[in-house]
Amino acid sequence: MRTVFRAQLDQCVHDLAAMCDLAVAAMRGATQALLTGDLRTAERVIADDVQLDRARSRCEDRAYSLLARQAPVAGDLRVVLAAVHAADTIERMGDLAAHVAATARRRHPDPVLPDQLRPTVATMAQTAITLADSAGTVIRDHDLALADTVEHGDEVVNVQHQQVFTLLMSQDWPHGVATAVDVSQLSRFYERYADHAVSLARRMVYVTTGRRRPPRLDNAA
Amino acid sequence: MRTVFRAQLDQCVHDLAAMCDLAVAAMRGATQALLTGDLRTAERVIADDVQLDRARSRCEDRAYSLLARQAPVAGDLRVVLAAVHAADTIERMGDLAAHVAATARRRHPDPVLPDQLRPTVATMAQTAITLADSAGTVIRDHDLALADTVEHGDEVVNVQHQQVFTLLMSQDWPHGVATAVDVSQLSRFYERYADHAVSLARRMVYVTTGRRRPPRLDNAA
Repeated sequence: MRTVFRAQLDQCVHDLAAMCDLAVAAMRGATQALLTGDLRTAERVIADDVQLDRARSRCEDRAYSLLARQAPVAGDLRVVLAAVHAADTIERMGDLAAHVAATARRRHPDPVLPDQLRPTVATMAQTAITLADSAGTVIRDHDLALADTVEHGDEVVNVQHQQVFTLLMSQDWPHGVATAVDVSQLSRFYERYADHAVSLARRMVYVTTGRRRPPRLDNAA
Repeated sequence: MRTVFRAQLDQCVHDLAAMCDLAVAAMRGATQALLTGDLRTAERVIADDVQLDRARSRCEDRAYSLLARQAPVAGDLRVVLAAVHAADTIERMGDLAAHVAATARRRHPDPVLPDQLRPTVATMAQTAITLADSAGTVIRDHDLALADTVEHGDEVVNVQHQQVFTLLMSQDWPHGVATAVDVSQLSRFYERYADHAVSLARRMVYVTTGRRRPPRLDNAA
């Protein structure tokens, strides 16, 4: 019974790793579209988002079927539910990538970002994507040491997010209101994506080890 | 056994109704702080948010204990898990209210909103709060007819959100970049809050009746 439970849980974890890969690819594509004005990539990211929505549903169904068939005890129950929660988080990361792609599409053929902001946003995107990629490795390889390094990775993105806002809010911002609004939204999308990646890595440590970490109060919404 | 399960589930639903009341009160307070520059109220909303975080934890614990003791079958299992998901959604609504209050606090004693925008934002806030209040009634009174009217209520807020963005993005926006960025964020907070209220009402129909509605693809993140 215990072996069957573990095998089915491993299948859930395998699904989550594949979902995380999709969320990473989506944000990579969306960022490329944003930085290069590549309309086709933007549209592909938006269209592909439904794959992550479906994968979340499948993962949830699999977990619920596992619960119903195996009726795990309290600790295992929480582990399975953490996996369901993780799938939900990854789906939202995909939504955020689609929001970035939609911004690029809305402005096409005009660039969204003024040249001054491109390096900052590119760095922020890279930090966020690296965190998500690391969360994927934590899921796939049960790499708990890596989970520890991811743990505070969102703080770097939070600082970058603040820097973008300081630029936008400065008296001598020369790029106009519409660009400022777009950039503020984009910055928030990357910051939220990074937050989700970190909470995902934390949750997967719990799924893998059953070791609970103290909850962080999420500033998500 | 079945009666015990139902009684414990009813307790969960009772907790959710109380949580929803807190989320409504939080957004009412935050909006008052925003519109009147009332710093004390802004600080109270921000400080009180931890109550909703704790209530979510308690609700989750209660649901998990219910699952572990009663080991419900597949249908009931989903109902309990939908209640857990609902608690998560209400917590996020509280986070959004705290974000609104934080914006009011950050600009104090300056007003966040130019006079031109105050009626629009006040209307948007009222629509969002009414939706959340209705979701609370759906939870408390199992009012399925009301749930149907809430169903598309977020579309009104989406239109208001678009109107705010059209104003911000117009060539003759006279209020500067910092205000535009603040208003765009606030508008998004209300829009997300309304989305969550609608998804909450849908979920509670399921918790109450076990009748599943087709999932809506959430544009949340």
